[in-house]
Amino acid sequence: MALDTLKDLFLSELRDIYHAENQLLAALPRMAEAAVAPALRDAFIKHLEETEIQVQRLDNVFEALGESARGKRCQGMEGIVEEGKELMAEDGGEPVLDAALIAAAQKVEHYEIAAYGCLVTYAGLLGEPQIAKLLKATLAEEEATDKALTALGESGINQAAVAAGMTEEEEED
Amino acid sequence: MALDTLKDLFLSELRDIYHAENQLLAALPRMAEAAVAPALRDAFIKHLEETEIQVQRLDNVFEALGESARGKRCQGMEGIVEEGKELMAEDGGEPVLDAALIAAAQKVEHYEIAAYGCLVTYAGLLGEPQIAKLLKATLAEEEATDKALTALGESGINQAAVAAGMTEEEEED
Repeated sequence: MALDTLKDLFLSELRDIYHAENQLLAALPRMAEAAVAPALRDAFIKHLEETEIQVQRLDNVFEALGESARGKRCQGMEGIVEEGKELMAEDGGEPVLDAALIAAAQKVEHYEIAAYGCLVTYAGLLGEPQIAKLLKATLAEEEATDKALTALGESGINQAAVAAGMTEEEEED
Repeated sequence: MALDTLKDLFLSELRDIYHAENQLLAALPRMAEAAVAPALRDAFIKHLEETEIQVQRLDNVFEALGESARGKRCQGMEGIVEEGKELMAEDGGEPVLDAALIAAAQKVEHYEIAAYGCLVTYAGLLGEPQIAKLLKATLAEEEATDKALTALGESGINQAAVAAGMTEEEEED
């Protein structure tokens, strides 16, 4: 696909994030299952529900543009999700794996923040305020999820990981 | 490598970002070469110089921890860089490729913002304020680069992409 116009780039980036979101729909239930802290599990379940709505919004955007809703392989998200899978397969202390899940999820959110940030800008430049509004709603949700994950880490999960390490060191003595 | 303690996770994430930064050292000169707008080229060259210093900081962090400075395959950054390479190989209008380069670079920056954000938190929890300070300096640079890229897009590169599209449509008429 040639990128001759900003609309070409807009469509290309829409298909990239559409594939990314669909990968997330598959990954989030596994992340929720792997999470030990109930608050983290709940955060993943909440974000799974949001992601379903975000995919619907993308369907609406494709429809408004008169384009087919299809994804294009998003290697960035593929790599991030693959790393998350490896983390979940690691042998490790549970509070540390929770902290690792938060880190993996924040990489996901930041990928999406970058992608939707550009999409909102392009939609505005292309004179599509309704589409920009839809994409902005998703952007705000991704930013809120990132902040919630930071707060979860600060509120106890990462500290639990430190405590787990200390217990282990004491046991080794 | 088992993730039993937060220090294990800290080291694992340090090796991930070390690999990511080293991939960027290879990618940024190519991005600078591909950029058409002089301001974008300059931004990539400036960030290449910063990245060199960021790798040195990571070397210092590994040294302070008494650990070898080595990377661990970072699939997230690999995927993002691979997408950037494909973009640069696309057949397309120059202003549109500049806009696409900005989008690719913002995905890079956001990956790093997520990674360094977690690393700063871990260093603080592990009682390593000097290390936290080094990592915080890099985090601030990544955030500033992301903002500078947004400003570059808003200040004219993306508009140039719109104008290129309009010219093309006129030519098609």
